Amino acid sequence: MTVSREVELEGHIIDSGMMQSCFGIIMDMGGSFSVEEFDIGRHKDEESYARLLVEADDTDQLQSIIHELHQHGVNPSDPKDATLVPAPDDQVVPHGFYSTTNHPTYIRYEGEWIEVEDMEMDCAVVVEDGEGADGPRAYTKVLNAIEAGDMVVTDETGIKVQPPERPRDSGGAFGFMQGGVSSERPSESTIRKIANAIRETKKEGGKVLAVCGPALIHSGAREDLARLVREGYVDMLSAGNGFAVHDIERDIYGTSLGMDTESLDHPRHGHKHHIYTISEVIREGGIAEAVESGTIESGVMYECVDNDRPFVLAGSIRDDGPLPDTITDAVEAQNAIREQAHEADMVLMLSTLLHSVAVGNCLPSTTRVVCVDINPATVTQLLDRGSAQAVGMVTDIGTFVPILAEQLLEE
Amino acid sequence: MTVSREVELEGHIIDSGMMQSCFGIIMDMGGSFSVEEFDIGRHKDEESYARLLVEADDTDQLQSIIHELHQHGVNPSDPKDATLVPAPDDQVVPHGFYSTTNHPTYIRYEGEWIEVEDMEMDCAVVVEDGEGADGPRAYTKVLNAIEAGDMVVTDETGIKVQPPERPRDSGGAFGFMQGGVSSERPSESTIRKIANAIRETKKEGGKVLAVCGPALIHSGAREDLARLVREGYVDMLSAGNGFAVHDIERDIYGTSLGMDTESLDHPRHGHKHHIYTISEVIREGGIAEAVESGTIESGVMYECVDNDRPFVLAGSIRDDGPLPDTITDAVEAQNAIREQAHEADMVLMLSTLLHSVAVGNCLPSTTRVVCVDINPATVTQLLDRGSAQAVGMVTDIGTFVPILAEQLLEE
Amino acid sequence: MTVSREVELEGHIIDSGMMQSCFGIIMDMGGSFSVEEFDIGRHKDEESYARLLVEADDTDQLQSIIHELHQHGVNPSDPKDATLVPAPDDQVVPHGFYSTTNHPTYIRYEGEWIEVEDMEMDCAVVVEDGEGADGPRAYTKVLNAIEAGDMVVTDETGIKVQPPERPRDSGGAFGFMQGGVSSERPSESTIRKIANAIRETKKEGGKVLAVCGPALIHSGAREDLARLVREGYVDMLSAGNGFAVHDIERDIYGTSLGMDTESLDHPRHGHKHHIYTISEVIREGGIAEAVESGTIESGVMYECVDNDRPFVLAGSIRDDGPLPDTITDAVEAQNAIREQAHEADMVLMLSTLLHSVAVGNCLPSTTRVVCVDINPATVTQLLDRGSAQAVGMVTDIGTFVPILAEQLLEE
Amino acid sequence: MTVSREVELEGHIIDSGMMQSCFGIIMDMGGSFSVEEFDIGRHKDEESYARLLVEADDTDQLQSIIHELHQHGVNPSDPKDATLVPAPDDQVVPHGFYSTTNHPTYIRYEGEWIEVEDMEMDCAVVVEDGEGADGPRAYTKVLNAIEAGDMVVTDETGIKVQPPERPRDSGGAFGFMQGGVSSERPSESTIRKIANAIRETKKEGGKVLAVCGPALIHSGAREDLARLVREGYVDMLSAGNGFAVHDIERDIYGTSLGMDTESLDHPRHGHKHHIYTISEVIREGGIAEAVESGTIESGVMYECVDNDRPFVLAGSIRDDGPLPDTITDAVEAQNAIREQAHEADMVLMLSTLLHSVAVGNCLPSTTRVVCVDINPATVTQLLDRGSAQAVGMVTDIGTFVPILAEQLLEE
Repeated sequence: MTVSREVELEGHIIDSGMMQSCFGIIMDMGGSFSVEEFDIGRHKDEESYARLLVEADDTDQLQSIIHELHQHGVNPSDPKDATLVPAPDDQVVPHGFYSTTNHPTYIRYEGEWIEVEDMEMDCAVVVEDGEGADGPRAYTKVLNAIEAGDMVVTDETGIKVQPPERPRDSGGAFGFMQGGVSSERPSESTIRKIANAIRETKKEGGKVLAVCGPALIHSGAREDLARLVREGYVDMLSAGNGFAVHDIERDIYGTSLGMDTESLDHPRHGHKHHIYTISEVIREGGIAEAVESGTIESGVMYECVDNDRPFVLAGSIRDDGPLPDTITDAVEAQNAIREQAHEADMVLMLSTLLHSVAVGNCLPSTTRVVCVDINPATVTQLLDRGSAQAVGMVTDIGTFVPILAEQLLEE
Repeated sequence: MTVSREVELEGHIIDSGMMQSCFGIIMDMGGSFSVEEFDIGRHKDEESYARLLVEADDTDQLQSIIHELHQHGVNPSDPKDATLVPAPDDQVVPHGFYSTTNHPTYIRYEGEWIEVEDMEMDCAVVVEDGEGADGPRAYTKVLNAIEAGDMVVTDETGIKVQPPERPRDSGGAFGFMQGGVSSERPSESTIRKIANAIRETKKEGGKVLAVCGPALIHSGAREDLARLVREGYVDMLSAGNGFAVHDIERDIYGTSLGMDTESLDHPRHGHKHHIYTISEVIREGGIAEAVESGTIESGVMYECVDNDRPFVLAGSIRDDGPLPDTITDAVEAQNAIREQAHEADMVLMLSTLLHSVAVGNCLPSTTRVVCVDINPATVTQLLDRGSAQAVGMVTDIGTFVPILAEQLLEE
Repeated sequence: MTVSREVELEGHIIDSGMMQSCFGIIMDMGGSFSVEEFDIGRHKDEESYARLLVEADDTDQLQSIIHELHQHGVNPSDPKDATLVPAPDDQVVPHGFYSTTNHPTYIRYEGEWIEVEDMEMDCAVVVEDGEGADGPRAYTKVLNAIEAGDMVVTDETGIKVQPPERPRDSGGAFGFMQGGVSSERPSESTIRKIANAIRETKKEGGKVLAVCGPALIHSGAREDLARLVREGYVDMLSAGNGFAVHDIERDIYGTSLGMDTESLDHPRHGHKHHIYTISEVIREGGIAEAVESGTIESGVMYECVDNDRPFVLAGSIRDDGPLPDTITDAVEAQNAIREQAHEADMVLMLSTLLHSVAVGNCLPSTTRVVCVDINPATVTQLLDRGSAQAVGMVTDIGTFVPILAEQLLEE
Repeated sequence: MTVSREVELEGHIIDSGMMQSCFGIIMDMGGSFSVEEFDIGRHKDEESYARLLVEADDTDQLQSIIHELHQHGVNPSDPKDATLVPAPDDQVVPHGFYSTTNHPTYIRYEGEWIEVEDMEMDCAVVVEDGEGADGPRAYTKVLNAIEAGDMVVTDETGIKVQPPERPRDSGGAFGFMQGGVSSERPSESTIRKIANAIRETKKEGGKVLAVCGPALIHSGAREDLARLVREGYVDMLSAGNGFAVHDIERDIYGTSLGMDTESLDHPRHGHKHHIYTISEVIREGGIAEAVESGTIESGVMYECVDNDRPFVLAGSIRDDGPLPDTITDAVEAQNAIREQAHEADMVLMLSTLLHSVAVGNCLPSTTRVVCVDINPATVTQLLDRGSAQAVGMVTDIGTFVPILAEQLLEE
C-alpha cells in the first residue's frame, strides 16, 4: 500500500534547478512521482508551474520526502492551516516541531498566509494570535529562547518556503554576486566589483557588516580597514577578542617599543605585548574608556568607538584575557550577533571561519554576502549556505583590503 | 653608553639549539655579546656551560633582550630575589608583571628557588609566603583570576626557566615523539608507535585526554573511539557541543529512521535530526539523564557516562542549541579545560583546531601530545608550541582511529 | 534582426540537470528561447523530450550558444551531414574544426550516424570513408597527430553528443560512484565499497589501471600495492620516474644499509640513495634487466615485471636521472598513457595530480574513476571532468591502500 | 672496535646552526664524538673553530656519518686529494661516486683546492686535468650527461662543502630575504621590499628570472607581468606550454569574440579557445612567427619576443597541443632550464610548483629566491632547499603582481 501527497512548484523552476532537485529528492529517498500538470514558461521571462503526486511506501517515508521538498521550495498543493502546539516547558519544543530554513517562509493561520519575521535557519516558528490591532504574527525563535506555552508550528502543513531565485540577468552592481568561488577570475577586477556593490548598498541606505579575523591585522590591512570604518563604508563590526587585542596592541606598542611595522622588523614573538595590552584595557575598564583616556589612539576599534559604529566581540575558549568588552557567554554572544545580522544588508566575511559561520547562521538567504579567505576550503564552506547573492574570493586579506579601500576612497 | 648584564646557559646547550637561539636573539634584537666562559661537554652525554655578557644601547633594549632570552632558558647569572608587587585590583596586574612560558619555571624567594605550580603560558605568577607549615608557594594565575592584593612577580629578576631538552637517545615508547610533522613517515607504523605510547602511558599510571572534533563522527570513527573510552584507553574527553550532538544523533536516529551508516545511504542533509537531537536531550535534562532513561544507548558520550570518564563540552558561537551539558561561558569552559589539561599525561588532539588550541594553551611543555588532522596547517600550528614530546600526523581521522583501536584492543 | 536554430533534448533531461544547463547556457550567453514542444516523463522511469527554438542577435552568438549546448548533449533538431575539410598540413587543422568533449559522440556521414572511436576530449574528429568492407569510420586525433589531408569535422552540424546520464537507482557495486567528493562519508565503509567495485570490475573481465604518486611509497603503502599487483587487482600501472625510483630504492637500500622502515628510523635525507638507485638501474640497462639480474627483488615495479603487468613511466622536468624506462618525451609519453587509458575500465588515481590529469585527459566520460588524495583541492580538480561514475576520497594514501588490500585479499 | 675520523668546523658555527646540526647528525646516526678543540668567537663578528673526533662502530657507519656531515659543511681535517675514477660507460658513474649538494664546493686535486663550477645538487663532479694553459677544472655533470672515461670524484675525501652563512646583519635590500615563509608579515610592505630587491639586483647588473604558472594569467596579472618584461625588470622567463597558451589566448580571443576580462563576463568554459589558440600558433610555425605576422599583438610572450627576453617553455604530459616552441623532451628541457638557472641572480617563482622545482633543482644555494603562491604547502616545499637568501609569500598572485608592478614602475 502506498501513500501519496500532491505538491506544487512555481516560478523559474527549471533554470533555478528546483525541478531537478525535486525529482532528485523524491528518487533518492526511495519515493516515486507522477507529473499531473506541467506548464512550461515558453520564454525566459515566463514562469513555469508543475503539480506532482508524490508516492511513498509509508507515512514516515512520505513525511521525510515532503519535509525535504519543503526545504527546497516545493509546497503541498492542498493548503491547510499550520498545526500549532504549545511548548511544554522553557527551552523544550513540541515533538515534530518545524525546523526552519533560511529562506523566506509563510505560515497559514486562520486561512491567511503570514510571513515569518526574522528568518533564520534551524529555528522554531512561534505564532502569536495578535489579539491587538496588529493581527497575528509569526517569527523565529532559537531553541534556547522557547518559553513554556509558546505556540510552535509543528509538522509540514500550512508552511510555504520560497528560496530566492538567482536572477539570470547578471547586470547591475550585484549581478556578479552569483558566481560562487572562482579562482579563475581576475583578482583586481573582482575587488573593483565588490567596491561597487558596497557603494551601491550604501546608496540604497543599506548597512554593511564586517566580520573580521585577526589575520587582517597581521597581514597589514588594519589601517585601511580603519579608514573604511571612519568613512562610513563599514557600519558594524563583528569579531573576536583576539582581533580587538591585536588591533589595540599595534596602537599601544607600535611606537613605544620601537616596533616598525613598515620595516618588517618586529620584536620576536611579542606575545608579552599581547598579554600586556589586555591587562592595560582591563585596567581602563574597557575599550571605550581606553579610547576616551587616550590610551588607544588609532586603529579599527578606535574608529568604531570614535564614529559610533557598534561592534560585537564574541568570546571563545582560545581567548587570552579576555577584554572587558568581550561577551564570554556563547548564547549571549549569539544574540548580539543575531541582532547585527538581522540589520545588515551586506556582510563582508574577512578571514575568519568561526565568526563568519556564527554570523552566517543568523542570516536570511536574501542578505548579500562577500567572503574572502586565503584558504579555499573556508570560502567554499561559507558560501555553501544557499544565499542568493554571494561571492567568494580566495585571496590575501593583506592585499584585498588595501585595494578595496583604494577603490572606495580614492575615486 | 651601553648597558650590560651577565647571563648563563647550562645543559645540552648546543644540540638543543639553545646556544644558537641565544646568539640569534641578541643579534636580531640589536644587542651584542661577549663570551666570558665556555666549557663544552666533550662527549655527547656531558653538559656544557656558557657565561655571556649581553650588551645593549639602553635599559629598555637590554630588558627586552633579557626577557626574550628568558623564554628560551637563558638566565641571568646574578640571582636576586624575584620582585613581588601586589595586584592593585581584581583582574588587574601590576605594570611590568612577568608573563609565563609553558616551561618549568622557578621563582627565587628569600634566597630559595621554588618551582611554579600549574605551569601554563601567558599567566601571571603569584607567590604566597606560606606562613603555615608548607613554606612559600608560587603558582600561575590567568589574568581574569587575579584578585586585589595577590603578590605578583614582576620584571625579569629571580626567575629561572628550563625548557625541556629533547633527549637525543630516541629509544623507548616515546622516542619517536620528537619528530614534529612528517608526511614522509609510513602511516601504519606511526599509528602502531602511537598505540605503544598510549599503552606505556597507561602502564605508568598516566591519564590520556582525547580532544575530539565532529569530523571524527562524520568519518565513521565513532564506534572505535567509543571502544577506546570503554576499555579505558581514553580517560577524559574534551570536545564541543557539535561533537556530542553528532554522536548522539547517530545513536537516536541511526535506526529509527532507517539510516544505515554502513550502506553510505543517509538522509539528505538531515539537519533536522541535528536540531531534533538537541531538543530531545534538552527535554531529558542532559546527557547523563538521557543515558539513564535509555534515550541514548551507544556511542562516545554514552561510554563516557557509563564508565565515569569525565568530559568537558565547551560552547562556541556557532553551536546549535546548545545541549544542557555544554558550558556556554568561555571563561568557565577554559577553567574546566584547564583542570583536565593539568591532569593529563598524554593528549590526543583529534581533528579539531579550536578545542586543541584551547587545551594546548593550558598544557605545560612536558605533557606528551599527539596531533592528528587531515589539514597539514592545523597540525603545524598545534605542534608549534614547544612541547618536548609531540608528534603530528597528517592523516584521515576516519582510518586513524580504527587502526589505532585495532592496535590497542586486538593484540 | 535575430537568427535562430531549433534544438532537441531527450532522456532524463530534468533530473540529469540537462534542461537546467540548457536554459542557463542560453541566458548566460545572451540568447533567448521558446519552448516549442515539451513532453515530460510522467514517472521516474519515463524519458522526457523537449524542442526549443534558440534565438540570438547574430550568427556568431548563435554559433557560440549552439556550440556550448552541444557540449552538454543538446543537439540541433535538423540533422545534416557533418562538414569535412581536409587538414592543410601536418599538425594543422582546418579553421573552425570541431573540438571534442569526452562524451560518446556521433558523426552524421552520408545520412548515417557513426560513433566516434577512442573518445577523448580536446581532439579533432577524423572521418575515413572506408571504401573497404568496413564502412566509414570516425575517430579522434590529437592536434599533433593530424596529417595533411585528414578529413576533419568542422563546425557544429552533423554532430551528436550524449553525456552519460547518472543512473538514479544507486544500487549495485558501482552505485556509490556518483557522489563526488564527500568528506562526510565514513572512510572505512567507503573503502569497502571501492574494494567491491574493483572486484566487480574484475569479475566483468575489466581492467584496472592504477595511477601512482611517490607519496604512496613514503607513506608505507608500497608492500600492499605490490600485493594488489601480484594478485591481479591492478592490471596496469601509470606513474612517473620518481615513483619507480623510490620503490626500487626501498628494495635496494632497505636492507643493505640497515634502514628499518618499520622502526621509523631512516637515514637522514638519504637523497644519496635516490641518486645511487638511479645509477644502479642505468648500469643494469633498465628495470626489467635489474629484476632479472636479481638487483631488484621486491616492490611494485618488481611485481609489474614479474607478473607482466604493463607500466608507463612518464618523464617530467623535475626528475632525477631519469631511469632508462622513463619516457622523457611528453608527446610520446602521452601516447603511451592514451593507450593504457583507452584499455582501462576502472582507474585508481592515487596521490598524484600530474599523472592523474594526464590520464584523465585521455579517458572517455564512461570510464569508472576513483580518486584518492589527502589534498581536497586535488580531488575536486580531478573529479571535475564529467565522468559519469566517479568517486573521490580525501584520505591518507598510507592507510587507504592497506585497508583496501585487506578488503580485497583477506576475505 | 670503533673507527674514527677527525672533522673541522669553521665560521659562525653556532649562530648558523652548523654546530647543532653536526652534533645532531652524529648522535642521530648512532655515532659519538669528542670535542678536541673549541675556540669560540667572543663577539658576534668573530668566527669560531671546532675540531671533533667522530667515532662509529664500523667503517660503513662512519662513512655515512661523514657523508652527512659533509652536506652540512663539516669537513675532514686531514685533507687528502679527491679520489677520481673513470666512468665505465656513458651515463654510468663509478660505484660510490660523490653526489653533490647545492652549496659552493671545492675538490682537492694534486694538493690544491679547486672550486667546482656550475654548482647544482644531485650531480657527479668531473675533474679535467687541464693540460692546457688553464690548469685543472672541476664541474658538475648530471647523471645522463656522463661520458665513458670522465674522471668522476668518488668517496668523501678531498671534498670541501661551504654552506653559505645567513648574514645576521639584516640590513640592505636583501636583508629581509632570510625569513622563510611568514604569514604574519604585512603583505604590502613585503611586496615593497621585494621590489627593492629586484631594483637592487638590476642595479648590480644582475639578471632576474621569472618562473610562471598559468594561474598568473587567470588571476588577471598578465598585463602587469608583460609590463615588467617590457621595462626590463624580468630578463628571462621559464614556464610551461599552458602558461604561453593562456597568455596568447587572451590576446587572440580577448577581443574578437567580445570577451571582456574587465567585466568578468567570459564565455563559459572556453576550452575551445584554448585548443584553437594552439592550432593557430602551430599554423604560424611558432610564437615568434605569430608575433611577426601580427597574429599575437600583446601579452607576456609578445613582450618576450619583442624585447628579446629569452624564454623556455618546458613540456609536460598534461599539455594540450603543444605549441611548436615547447620543448617536449624532459631532459632537453632540463638542459635549457639549467642554462637559465645558472645565469640568474634572482629568481621569482610565481604560482607554479612543477616549474619552480625544476628551476630550483638547478640553482646553487647562493641565488636569491622569491617564492609566491596561494598554497602554503607549495611555498614551504620550495623554500626547503637551503638557499641562503630566500623569502616566501603566501598570497594571491593576482594582487601580488599588480602591486609589485606599481612599486617598480610608478615611482
